[in-house]
Amino acid sequence: MNIITNNKWIGQRTIRPDGADKVTGRAAFAADTTMPGMIWGKIKRSPHPHARIKSIDTSKAEALPGVKAVVTARDIVDFPIDKSVMLGIQDMRWMCRNVMAREKALFPGHPVAAVAATSEAIAAKACELIEVDYEVLPWSIEIDDALKPDAPILHEFNKFEGKPSNIAGKLEVKKGDIAQGFKDAEIVIERTFTTRPVHQGYIEPHACLISVAPDNKTTIWSSSQGQFMVRAMTSYLTGIPQSDIRAIPAEIGGGFGGKTIVYLEPLATLLAKKSGRPVKMVMTREEVMRATGPTSGSKSTVKIGAKKDGTIVAAQGTFYLQAGALPGSPIRGAVGCSFSPYDIPNVLSVGYDVLSNRSKVAAYRAPGAPIGAFAVECVLDELAEALKMDPLELRLKNAAKQGTKAAHGPVFPRIGYIETLEAAKAHPHYTAPLGKLQGRGIASGFWFNAGGESSAQVNITEDGNVVVTTGHPDIGGSRAAIANICAELLGIDYRRVSVLIGDTATVGFSNLTGGSRVLFASAMVVTQSADKVISTLRERAAKIWEIDPEAVKWENGAAHPASPNAGQFEPLTLAELAAKAPQMGGPIGAGVQLNTEGAEGGFGTHICDVEVDVELGIVRVIRYTAVQDVGRAIHPGYVEGQMQGGVAQGIGWALNEEYIYNKDGKVDNPGFLDYRMPVCSDLPMLDTVMVEVPNPKHPQGVKGVGEVPLVPVMAAVANAVHNALGKRFYSLPMSPPKVLEVIEGQG
Amino acid sequence: MNIITNNKWIGQRTIRPDGADKVTGRAAFAADTTMPGMIWGKIKRSPHPHARIKSIDTSKAEALPGVKAVVTARDIVDFPIDKSVMLGIQDMRWMCRNVMAREKALFPGHPVAAVAATSEAIAAKACELIEVDYEVLPWSIEIDDALKPDAPILHEFNKFEGKPSNIAGKLEVKKGDIAQGFKDAEIVIERTFTTRPVHQGYIEPHACLISVAPDNKTTIWSSSQGQFMVRAMTSYLTGIPQSDIRAIPAEIGGGFGGKTIVYLEPLATLLAKKSGRPVKMVMTREEVMRATGPTSGSKSTVKIGAKKDGTIVAAQGTFYLQAGALPGSPIRGAVGCSFSPYDIPNVLSVGYDVLSNRSKVAAYRAPGAPIGAFAVECVLDELAEALKMDPLELRLKNAAKQGTKAAHGPVFPRIGYIETLEAAKAHPHYTAPLGKLQGRGIASGFWFNAGGESSAQVNITEDGNVVVTTGHPDIGGSRAAIANICAELLGIDYRRVSVLIGDTATVGFSNLTGGSRVLFASAMVVTQSADKVISTLRERAAKIWEIDPEAVKWENGAAHPASPNAGQFEPLTLAELAAKAPQMGGPIGAGVQLNTEGAEGGFGTHICDVEVDVELGIVRVIRYTAVQDVGRAIHPGYVEGQMQGGVAQGIGWALNEEYIYNKDGKVDNPGFLDYRMPVCSDLPMLDTVMVEVPNPKHPQGVKGVGEVPLVPVMAAVANAVHNALGKRFYSLPMSPPKVLEVIEGQG
Repeated sequence: MNIITNNKWIGQRTIRPDGADKVTGRAAFAADTTMPGMIWGKIKRSPHPHARIKSIDTSKAEALPGVKAVVTARDIVDFPIDKSVMLGIQDMRWMCRNVMAREKALFPGHPVAAVAATSEAIAAKACELIEVDYEVLPWSIEIDDALKPDAPILHEFNKFEGKPSNIAGKLEVKKGDIAQGFKDAEIVIERTFTTRPVHQGYIEPHACLISVAPDNKTTIWSSSQGQFMVRAMTSYLTGIPQSDIRAIPAEIGGGFGGKTIVYLEPLATLLAKKSGRPVKMVMTREEVMRATGPTSGSKSTVKIGAKKDGTIVAAQGTFYLQAGALPGSPIRGAVGCSFSPYDIPNVLSVGYDVLSNRSKVAAYRAPGAPIGAFAVECVLDELAEALKMDPLELRLKNAAKQGTKAAHGPVFPRIGYIETLEAAKAHPHYTAPLGKLQGRGIASGFWFNAGGESSAQVNITEDGNVVVTTGHPDIGGSRAAIANICAELLGIDYRRVSVLIGDTATVGFSNLTGGSRVLFASAMVVTQSADKVISTLRERAAKIWEIDPEAVKWENGAAHPASPNAGQFEPLTLAELAAKAPQMGGPIGAGVQLNTEGAEGGFGTHICDVEVDVELGIVRVIRYTAVQDVGRAIHPGYVEGQMQGGVAQGIGWALNEEYIYNKDGKVDNPGFLDYRMPVCSDLPMLDTVMVEVPNPKHPQGVKGVGEVPLVPVMAAVANAVHNALGKRFYSLPMSPPKVLEVIEGQG
Repeated sequence: MNIITNNKWIGQRTIRPDGADKVTGRAAFAADTTMPGMIWGKIKRSPHPHARIKSIDTSKAEALPGVKAVVTARDIVDFPIDKSVMLGIQDMRWMCRNVMAREKALFPGHPVAAVAATSEAIAAKACELIEVDYEVLPWSIEIDDALKPDAPILHEFNKFEGKPSNIAGKLEVKKGDIAQGFKDAEIVIERTFTTRPVHQGYIEPHACLISVAPDNKTTIWSSSQGQFMVRAMTSYLTGIPQSDIRAIPAEIGGGFGGKTIVYLEPLATLLAKKSGRPVKMVMTREEVMRATGPTSGSKSTVKIGAKKDGTIVAAQGTFYLQAGALPGSPIRGAVGCSFSPYDIPNVLSVGYDVLSNRSKVAAYRAPGAPIGAFAVECVLDELAEALKMDPLELRLKNAAKQGTKAAHGPVFPRIGYIETLEAAKAHPHYTAPLGKLQGRGIASGFWFNAGGESSAQVNITEDGNVVVTTGHPDIGGSRAAIANICAELLGIDYRRVSVLIGDTATVGFSNLTGGSRVLFASAMVVTQSADKVISTLRERAAKIWEIDPEAVKWENGAAHPASPNAGQFEPLTLAELAAKAPQMGGPIGAGVQLNTEGAEGGFGTHICDVEVDVELGIVRVIRYTAVQDVGRAIHPGYVEGQMQGGVAQGIGWALNEEYIYNKDGKVDNPGFLDYRMPVCSDLPMLDTVMVEVPNPKHPQGVKGVGEVPLVPVMAAVANAVHNALGKRFYSLPMSPPKVLEVIEGQG
């Protein structure tokens, strides 16, 4: 495959197509949408962590003036709990129970009914009037509690090792002979780590507006990471065929994985269908915090054995990840990514999916990988210390490279991990002096990156400009990057390319925005579409010139006669050929739908400096440099933005974010005031170094870049704190109370 | 080309996809749309029929609190009046002057400025505050006045036969030797006819909502017969590149040709750009009547010569059609269609485009053809009377058929005109007894029908249903017909097919909904797309069965192994193959963009019975039968609807519709109360007979059906009135005052 090397637009920091709309408040998010006759939906939620629903009486709510519809689990398609029905990685039997409690309420905040009324206030009042008869059951929140022999079992049918259990799944990755590996080791370090569930923290709460006509034709405007996912899940859960549902992606105010499933759409659809009115639902921040996301809390044990020269010979990880109340924690990311940066002959990595009475987890940026990396990269730091090796040198000695068979299976093609280590080592940050109570840590991370289904359409307007439609909500700059690529391919100014996101009716099937897949996959289908358009343009020029299409080349936005006719005809520009389209066979445009392959994993290495306030227990990140193999930075500004965003989220995870549960099993801090995400004033400038090792399997060398930058952060911060204090933290967050405990020797 | 003959869905009266939305008031028309921060636009219009604009002072309007923007012709891209810039059949130098008066106001109601303000009332008040200094000029309204030697000239640069003139164009069609033809004739009849301008009378006034971001990215929701026309014209008139404009077609409440150009969109775009706010504009009915549409008024002279046996040997027509204040009357339809039903050796047909100080005409259902047919078909009736021939027999004797070289140029392929005459002759209506003061008339008509650019996309959903996107606003049932066709091709229930209209960003270029072209062209691209989808499905089944794709047939919605493997494998249904899509290459879908060719003209023959109230002068249509060659009735209910709608409009044109001008050159009846369109109680059941002579150049045999049914109506009614009263009418409308005049011998 030819990779363009002499680029005009690829690599430029072009103005973002969605910028003006967003900074002027014009971008239409789902909550901005209205429809004539629209009413409001609200959800009644369980106050209990675990309770059998004996009956629900909605009669008083239905009698309240202004109430137009009430739905309960009875209205949702029932997927029997013991039979798997998969849509991608989601199981509909869990989804139907996540959007609305069926047999039992499984966490505080679990929806038990929904109401639509002529005002939000009436809908809220109606929710209060719904009477639910609960049989309150014992509950567990934490992993250790959920795994006790007498723990309350969430789903009786779920068995592990033959017995009802809260372990809902196990995943194992093996390479070599782990026992022999540890026998061969001259030094072995084994540690146990815990992390807390943290929320994706998107600024925009879940929202939708849904209209259902009497013939079931359904239109959905909603905030999601995939309009086709919204269509499919809503279809499954309401029984309306997919072809009767048009899902329109609104602008999205952040997702980070948390909007890869639906919460509101099936309920709003059913309310709209029952009431005959368009229904709008917008979550409060409290609802977001209580009943969506977060990612798993975890308990991980990692054991690494090495020779005295630093050669790692064996690595073992056991990862317990919280699923929340319904199965589906990201054990694949923890088990599969943690050891992949290293060429280790003997690996055993095992993950467990653990149920407890908290909200079901959702994907969060490189799901599972940061949890595993936190444990592995902290153990490596300790190993380097024990071996008196520079921690970068230890990693360089064991780094995976082209030809390495990764622990999770594949043999790596040309990858850029070593380049990130070398760039970090050469960076002035790595050798800058540190002050008192300051420390420096490094850590690396890996994420798979995904390919999958994408569709695109490239059309030439009558005035010779370009409109590109793709099928993915743009959460990381895909529109700007596609504009750069399309301008490059067609040889025109990027301002002549408009890139838009189609809805489910107007673009071919496109899988989720997630897995760092969007630019990889959509650039591939856009490139193929643009190639077809260029073929048409060359054919039409050839017809005008009466020469062979093969003797026409496309350069600088125009058809030129090539040898043997070079120079014999004036070039025909895109605008000229577009103007002739009606006479020459019709409109010029092409679309491609593809299941893309060849996404290659990405690696990053981070350097973090902290300063610890030992009186207040506050850890401050004072300098941070993220180095990453970004494949090819199509739009460097966005790539840097992704890297900085990932680091900021990781710092929050490392230092402050956690849910505080009260004695009733309910979250006590469901808001941004008490759930402490870092803001600008908490952070230094987050420096980035983009290492470009192009993906050989992609026409522009694209690798996913969005998820890798979260993976190393917590380990880098923890290693820096150790370097500052001489004390290791095995439990996140390293919040002031815990820091003080450790300083005072109680941690 | 194979035409499907054994149909399951083609020919079925399936439930219309847009039905539920429309009858429940849920369909979103442009005026239903809102946006946060939206303001209102209003137009200040000239009170004068003809006036030089010396200056416009907008300062008082701009100072009014709540006013956010004012635009005048200065803000619109200026196309010099003496240089043609064409977009399809529209010339931008006229368009820019039609949306806003530039040098002169040319008709009462001509826009001179536009205002956007926070309320409609403030915008209206601001329009009053705009001061225009006019130099009032002499004016003419009627054709005869405009053609007088001393008539006020609308556009000085416009010359005819070397002199400034109000004749803006001439079109001539010739066949044989017209002089010799009349020499050979044994009987010649020559008559002069006039018709009045009539409005398209769509129920929904023009409306749009437009947002322009600071980077010029423009979103237009509007009521039109073509989102791509809206995009292109708005681009031309505002200077914003097409790729920055997304034109979204709202549901449309009728167009009939009148929405094939823009009135509001460029003004609202400029107001939105200036104000930084989304701008909504909705015309009042009065504005629609004063300043949009109508079709031309006309003065036609038709002379036909025949042998005594009824063989027509010569025909000559001279058609003066009103353009309104800017060039562009539909002389092509009058000149080209009028004689085309007949095989006449010698024809001369000439049309003139006549300017005067009335609103610029717009297309109206078979533009020009009904005007010509009125004259020709009345003269034929008189000829039959003179020859003592049955009027159907006269037409049968001279009817065009396969191989006839039409007066307008082409040689007809297999056409169905004779079949319509024979069906009319055989119909019980034709021989039913008539009562006192009742009469029967017949007339025929022809319309070209158009092909042109269309695009479509056919996508298979994950659950094995079908979503089709086309690029044409649906004003005549194209969604329902495409669903039938797609169900037929794919072998599935039509309810599993959803058909939607894409906007300019999400479907390939598609020319206007007009010219009876939509189903012809879109069925062609949908068929090609569906064929590609079926190829993919066959390939995938072949891969699963490990046989050759050629050995797989698609039948009844499933892939079946064909000979030599017939019966060896279980069929694979669309749903089964759709479920396997991710593992077998990705999404299943295909799109086609094409400049379609092979649209063939359509013919109709109508029988009309009237009863005349000689005291009140009221003509009542008491029975009506429209016979038409419809090619292939994909959805018969819609075809009948088109036929009935055309007849109803023709009856209005024949009997009542006209603008009443006062002494100041201003329309006195700009509303549905005084401008008298027929309502249900004015009409009998309008019977239809569909004759199916499939178009051999179309995969489903489709011919356009929407325009033909208006063409014969006025002549059929006039011939019936003559039959009832023994008196001929040469001037429309045959309204009570005129009928009384004729009865009393003054007409």
